[in-house]
Amino acid sequence: MTMAKRDTYTPESLLAVAVKVFNERGYDGTSMEHLSKAAGISKSSIYHHVRSKEELLRLAISRALDGLFAVLDEPAATSGRAVDRLEYVTRRTVDVLIDELPYVTLLLRVRGNTGTERWAMERRREFDHRVAALLKEAAADGDLRQDVDVRLATRLLFGMINSVAEWYRPGRGGASADEVADAVVRTALAGLRTHDPA
Amino acid sequence: MTMAKRDTYTPESLLAVAVKVFNERGYDGTSMEHLSKAAGISKSSIYHHVRSKEELLRLAISRALDGLFAVLDEPAATSGRAVDRLEYVTRRTVDVLIDELPYVTLLLRVRGNTGTERWAMERRREFDHRVAALLKEAAADGDLRQDVDVRLATRLLFGMINSVAEWYRPGRGGASADEVADAVVRTALAGLRTHDPA
Repeated sequence: MTMAKRDTYTPESLLAVAVKVFNERGYDGTSMEHLSKAAGISKSSIYHHVRSKEELLRLAISRALDGLFAVLDEPAATSGRAVDRLEYVTRRTVDVLIDELPYVTLLLRVRGNTGTERWAMERRREFDHRVAALLKEAAADGDLRQDVDVRLATRLLFGMINSVAEWYRPGRGGASADEVADAVVRTALAGLRTHDPA
Repeated sequence: MTMAKRDTYTPESLLAVAVKVFNERGYDGTSMEHLSKAAGISKSSIYHHVRSKEELLRLAISRALDGLFAVLDEPAATSGRAVDRLEYVTRRTVDVLIDELPYVTLLLRVRGNTGTERWAMERRREFDHRVAALLKEAAADGDLRQDVDVRLATRLLFGMINSVAEWYRPGRGGASADEVADAVVRTALAGLRTHDPA
């Protein structure tokens, strides 16, 4: 029998354990038993921190969404030419994805039917729509090529951004967050621009 | 009790059913029982066609890989300037992804530990390396911007291409395969090029 360790978890450190398990096993495939084993504390200790598995999901998803939506309120995202705001938001979205990698990964994988999962998908769509609106504005300004549909371009841009979650692993001596963000801007956005930024 | 229907499956039509179930439930989460129910024939009828669930996986993955690798042997992929071959391969990869959507989706999701899954991941990496080699050659020709790392650019390009499998649904009145392929070339590749093609 494994001795349960003393419960020294903060809400944040318990959440980090839960998110790791959710990403490994899938949210549906994770039981409170799995979480208890991974955390090394009893199920009742976990219930001391949160009411349910779904509450852990909501907290984790909120952390990802708060990070992403905060970007849209940053000064460089709210003033200036739309194409420059788009570039800024793209760069910062990559930053947040990398800084909050397990949380954003979980957000991107959510597909289910609980209230929390539907809410997560709805909020994610809202974020995509906010970025699509920037693309549309930049296209209207004549700063993006007119031969690419805005909806399609938004999907492809997020396809590229979100794919980073599939392979980026911090501290492996590969590209830094800034290098990845630069590369996304240089590949996807430079292709969409009517001319290179000065 | 549901009457099993008469087994009128060809290898191809049975494979189509299996791939649909694999994509819905995940390969690991699919049992022969699930396949039997989805096909409406008994398990022993399925075993009349294939030896195992893993054989169905191998057949499905082979179909995706054969389509993708065939692109690399097409004339426009084997002669001409590297940057043009890269553009051609990108465009045709999107075509194959859309034409063989369920099969490529399955290939992209495979992560497991059976021999077939490891083989699939190995072949997929091989395909990525072939495309990375084209990028490298195009960069050496001076046709791609020098400030983006080839390995990173390859990952981002495939991130964009592969993301199409997440949202593209045929016949929904959205973009056609050609429009999607054009958009990928115009977004990702135009950004990488040192100058727009004439």
